[in-house]
Amino acid sequence: MGSIYGENIHISIFGQSHSPAIGVSIDGLPAGKLVDMQKLSVFLSRRAPGNHAYSTQRKESDLPEILGGIINGKTCGAPFAAIIRNKDTRSTDYNNLKDVPRPAHADYTAQMKFGGAQDIAGGGHFSGRLTAPLCIAGGICLQLLAEEGIYIGAHIQEIAGIADKNFDMIELQPSFLQEIQRKEFPVLDDEKGRQMREMIEEARMQADSVGGIVECVVIGAPAGLGDPMFLGMENRFAAIIFGIPAVKGLEFGNGFLCTRLRGSQNNDEYAIRNGVVCTKTNRHGGILGGITSGMPIVFRVAFKPTPSIGKEQQSISMNRHVETKLVIQGRHDPCIVPRAVPCVEAAAAIAVYDAFLSYKKER
Amino acid sequence: MGSIYGENIHISIFGQSHSPAIGVSIDGLPAGKLVDMQKLSVFLSRRAPGNHAYSTQRKESDLPEILGGIINGKTCGAPFAAIIRNKDTRSTDYNNLKDVPRPAHADYTAQMKFGGAQDIAGGGHFSGRLTAPLCIAGGICLQLLAEEGIYIGAHIQEIAGIADKNFDMIELQPSFLQEIQRKEFPVLDDEKGRQMREMIEEARMQADSVGGIVECVVIGAPAGLGDPMFLGMENRFAAIIFGIPAVKGLEFGNGFLCTRLRGSQNNDEYAIRNGVVCTKTNRHGGILGGITSGMPIVFRVAFKPTPSIGKEQQSISMNRHVETKLVIQGRHDPCIVPRAVPCVEAAAAIAVYDAFLSYKKER
Amino acid sequence: MGSIYGENIHISIFGQSHSPAIGVSIDGLPAGKLVDMQKLSVFLSRRAPGNHAYSTQRKESDLPEILGGIINGKTCGAPFAAIIRNKDTRSTDYNNLKDVPRPAHADYTAQMKFGGAQDIAGGGHFSGRLTAPLCIAGGICLQLLAEEGIYIGAHIQEIAGIADKNFDMIELQPSFLQEIQRKEFPVLDDEKGRQMREMIEEARMQADSVGGIVECVVIGAPAGLGDPMFLGMENRFAAIIFGIPAVKGLEFGNGFLCTRLRGSQNNDEYAIRNGVVCTKTNRHGGILGGITSGMPIVFRVAFKPTPSIGKEQQSISMNRHVETKLVIQGRHDPCIVPRAVPCVEAAAAIAVYDAFLSYKKER
Amino acid sequence: MGSIYGENIHISIFGQSHSPAIGVSIDGLPAGKLVDMQKLSVFLSRRAPGNHAYSTQRKESDLPEILGGIINGKTCGAPFAAIIRNKDTRSTDYNNLKDVPRPAHADYTAQMKFGGAQDIAGGGHFSGRLTAPLCIAGGICLQLLAEEGIYIGAHIQEIAGIADKNFDMIELQPSFLQEIQRKEFPVLDDEKGRQMREMIEEARMQADSVGGIVECVVIGAPAGLGDPMFLGMENRFAAIIFGIPAVKGLEFGNGFLCTRLRGSQNNDEYAIRNGVVCTKTNRHGGILGGITSGMPIVFRVAFKPTPSIGKEQQSISMNRHVETKLVIQGRHDPCIVPRAVPCVEAAAAIAVYDAFLSYKKER
Repeated sequence: MGSIYGENIHISIFGQSHSPAIGVSIDGLPAGKLVDMQKLSVFLSRRAPGNHAYSTQRKESDLPEILGGIINGKTCGAPFAAIIRNKDTRSTDYNNLKDVPRPAHADYTAQMKFGGAQDIAGGGHFSGRLTAPLCIAGGICLQLLAEEGIYIGAHIQEIAGIADKNFDMIELQPSFLQEIQRKEFPVLDDEKGRQMREMIEEARMQADSVGGIVECVVIGAPAGLGDPMFLGMENRFAAIIFGIPAVKGLEFGNGFLCTRLRGSQNNDEYAIRNGVVCTKTNRHGGILGGITSGMPIVFRVAFKPTPSIGKEQQSISMNRHVETKLVIQGRHDPCIVPRAVPCVEAAAAIAVYDAFLSYKKER
Repeated sequence: MGSIYGENIHISIFGQSHSPAIGVSIDGLPAGKLVDMQKLSVFLSRRAPGNHAYSTQRKESDLPEILGGIINGKTCGAPFAAIIRNKDTRSTDYNNLKDVPRPAHADYTAQMKFGGAQDIAGGGHFSGRLTAPLCIAGGICLQLLAEEGIYIGAHIQEIAGIADKNFDMIELQPSFLQEIQRKEFPVLDDEKGRQMREMIEEARMQADSVGGIVECVVIGAPAGLGDPMFLGMENRFAAIIFGIPAVKGLEFGNGFLCTRLRGSQNNDEYAIRNGVVCTKTNRHGGILGGITSGMPIVFRVAFKPTPSIGKEQQSISMNRHVETKLVIQGRHDPCIVPRAVPCVEAAAAIAVYDAFLSYKKER
Repeated sequence: MGSIYGENIHISIFGQSHSPAIGVSIDGLPAGKLVDMQKLSVFLSRRAPGNHAYSTQRKESDLPEILGGIINGKTCGAPFAAIIRNKDTRSTDYNNLKDVPRPAHADYTAQMKFGGAQDIAGGGHFSGRLTAPLCIAGGICLQLLAEEGIYIGAHIQEIAGIADKNFDMIELQPSFLQEIQRKEFPVLDDEKGRQMREMIEEARMQADSVGGIVECVVIGAPAGLGDPMFLGMENRFAAIIFGIPAVKGLEFGNGFLCTRLRGSQNNDEYAIRNGVVCTKTNRHGGILGGITSGMPIVFRVAFKPTPSIGKEQQSISMNRHVETKLVIQGRHDPCIVPRAVPCVEAAAAIAVYDAFLSYKKER
Repeated sequence: MGSIYGENIHISIFGQSHSPAIGVSIDGLPAGKLVDMQKLSVFLSRRAPGNHAYSTQRKESDLPEILGGIINGKTCGAPFAAIIRNKDTRSTDYNNLKDVPRPAHADYTAQMKFGGAQDIAGGGHFSGRLTAPLCIAGGICLQLLAEEGIYIGAHIQEIAGIADKNFDMIELQPSFLQEIQRKEFPVLDDEKGRQMREMIEEARMQADSVGGIVECVVIGAPAGLGDPMFLGMENRFAAIIFGIPAVKGLEFGNGFLCTRLRGSQNNDEYAIRNGVVCTKTNRHGGILGGITSGMPIVFRVAFKPTPSIGKEQQSISMNRHVETKLVIQGRHDPCIVPRAVPCVEAAAAIAVYDAFLSYKKER
């Protein structure tokens, strides 16, 4: 039981890569809230396989079908539910994966957990495709947050060691986030973006893959979101962010860097600017004691290089209990980071909106 | 509502730094399990303020008083509950903190969340002292896990940029973990430990503080622990680890480093050693798709430098709505990393034991 | 947020009476369990509108479509999800119901909760139709329980004051339950059943409706299921049973009758029969202190008369804020009790299977 | 894991009858709310063993000690925690109960669940004494609800078949509830109360016991509390009410009686009185579709006769696996219903306040 999330809203994700459909139900959305399906569709297209920089064909089939929870374009208090049909599920023989697990995939661990009953086709429930229903839920939360003046945006902070500029962590504007989100390749510094794409292309040519970092900010969140201890904002983000496949690290504000700083270098002093309390710097990433300070919330997510590579790798035959060679067929995305950007935004939006509902009930 | 954790066992932590007591209840422990109070006491002493390298006096008062859940030294099926009295709560005037928040502490954010109703004394419920009940719960889970052949150990991986050796991520033995845990300053390389202590001392002399990294391993966990998506082992660890004060980052296996590696450099190939399936390397940190692989689980936790420093800092008066200077009085731990080591072990133990109970019900 | 249930398995029900589909996801089913779709279909037909005693037409459309969680007829560890299309949702004008609420329906309370955003058509998410996904989930749990030797069956215990015989609460056999379940009108005493049907028919002729009681038993459940306090078996049953529309009461064992008995008349003495501990009588209904005793679990559920009646009733116009008359159009089931029988079994099965998974993790 | 309750507030009850203490933590109370300890103490005295009609001695020891969550008489956002010491736990030999279970107690079922590890002394965690922490939590919720204009009161509706008058379900005033609550024996009709006490006394003289019914009302609750399906108000009440020992039945509004009525007799017509929408009658007990209508919420709770009776009963020796006689020693309350009245109010208050917090976050 893992595909559920939330304290006030309750997200339940279902389906496998090659099952008839994937989908999501969301229980607990307030009633009477407008959901703009066109906007949602634009958001979803940012993670769609056919819509990033390397591709032009549009897969219309990834448009979600709403099954319940929406009347006349508004939430109606009943659980929201939507599905996406898995149309492209030709019976490629994935059975080999049950015998010879792909390195760095979940094939082996799923086998150990489910004892062979797992759906292996296309990665089953572990497939990156399951981030589509996550993005449906997150896309809705993004709209509901925008109504409250809370905006979320992410960019590719690093790929293969090439770093983008950083967001301005003090004066960030929603319009700037939207500008980045409209880019095919969401970086602040397009020249760095060009270099990143070269690195991706180079990896692809060598039948290899690269990883990277997504940086995400939340602006407009009021001070006072989050709870002490295990429902602090960091915990809330982490509990959902690590549900995105290939995430191996997460840090807030100065993150791992702060371990090498002195307190005097890492503390953010308070100030009053234009009559408003703020911190002069934002090394804390907008969260102290698990609770938002009103400064932009900042976190970074580490994505490992795509496990599916074209190079020959050593694996084992589980049936014959011997070591064996494995060559993974087919074309694979040599870097998932660009498509992960909206997934991180979606996950963040769910976590923030859920915390926001808690915030409302305390007032 | 944040001070609760768990799916199968249910941990509820209560109390503030200066309230009559702090404590924890644990609902859902199996009945009939031996809890060795002597062992628990030894474990708790590792995080106790008076017991680390810089101090000799022992605060006996931090021994927990069991209120329920144990009969004849064994769990009895009723919720476990224990408290620690807060004896040393003289009425220092903390009220100033309500007016002038300390940088990088939760003073300001708590004020914004609780509107002035919060308990400010000693940090209230946000105090590092609340890791004591966490360690009670975790200490019990460590004992229950040891019964199942699962062992957890952590060390100081880095302080102020000085790095310890790494654990051997393939061949780690329980006895080695215990050896490290018996050290006053838990590092693998004592010379590096000496340098770290020098850096701490230097920071103290300068009325400043330093941060660091704790590395934690879980060995003996069977393959198949954890669930897909939001209850993956990374999510489970993260949901509790970020509940420890001052944590700003968390990474698994190769973590952020893997973002700079190619897939061919980061994938762990499978092999068979002594008739057992394993990976030749352990860059994945024992978790794939949220589920354990049977290899040692490895994660690293970034702790920021102690926010309380002796240097003058700028803050604000919330009442007068003006900027003001702040000098924090009293002696403060210039580095919390050494005392955080058992806290990380405790948090990890709770997460693993909770997942282990899920694992049992699936079989 | 209400349409979710469960501790170990997690049921999430979605859809409205006239939305594109209704459905359910179930997270947490063990992997590798056979789900017999034919058996499930037979079970679902028992609550289907066209399949009870008063009707012959079969609505094939109520067969669920599986979207995920099943591979080769077995659960695969991923969440189970299934939907039923709402084909018959012609745009009858239900808008009047937003203005003039039907007495004893949820029209008014939904309006007050959702502020007019609710889906009113066909009762929306409050419709009895939402028991179909409940029966999908329950039908699967019934199959999983049967594998463990646990059987659940219910009968119409009373309609309009006419009482059926009672189950033998000591020596009940699975085969007898199945015999009752195969009946069109599930009573033990068919002559009483005939009288009940006469009363239903009489109410229908008078444009009125009748209520009744469903009695449900669980046999084969091991002693030791359930938990103290708020997760006792009674609490677990109640938390789901009151989710079936029109339920107004629930009692276990002797129930309300026991309030008029002396302790000496209500206590069940222990005995040993064929080497097995049992109670000589079963007034406790198989549960003591929230935990099963190994005797049959017995409970009774009170269903109110169908609120939709043909008689003219007084209501109000919410828009005009005046009293007004209301005549509900269309044909309505004059008694929902017969179709409620499998719903009670389904709800009971979910509660028992969820408790059974807890039971497993404790061993 | 059963001693926890709540969606927005989180109640965790711990301790056994003879453990060092019993207690409760409540996570999620809003900060800044006044808790009147004097009022709480008065409320607790209503369930205290020494304070009912048959006794004069006051056990001061049952006053709770607050451990956290309260500063200057107000909630501070940290979890509330309080304990009551178990002073009177002399080592009566309860070990016999592990061998020879008392009929209608949890002795046997606890043995089956916990395999002999359970705390048997005084009923352990199953003891009625554990309603004391429930009343602490409920007493606080009653105060918080009163601030919102929501009042809860209960009376003895029936003992041994002797029925009290009913509350006026349309025009009930808070002052009337308080009047009943001040009575030593909380009935509306004192003559009926006298007869009930005679029946209790008669049962006591015969070493027997009697059961009864508690009726509870909630007035002032706004229309719109509660959620569809499994978090309907009935489900919420039921999930906690069945956690009170000896409860065997629960009904709302007309309850089981409505099963014998026609729809036209049971439906409540809407009307407008003094400009306010209401129902002319209140057979629905203030809840439709799980959601409050604004009319008084009404429910009745069936309590079985005290299982501990002085008469000889047949039981078994579990060790020797033979039938044996049992005579329970000591004085026992021949009727728990009077002391159950505040427990029902407490449980209701927790359920309503938890639902009220959900209600707030939707607005």
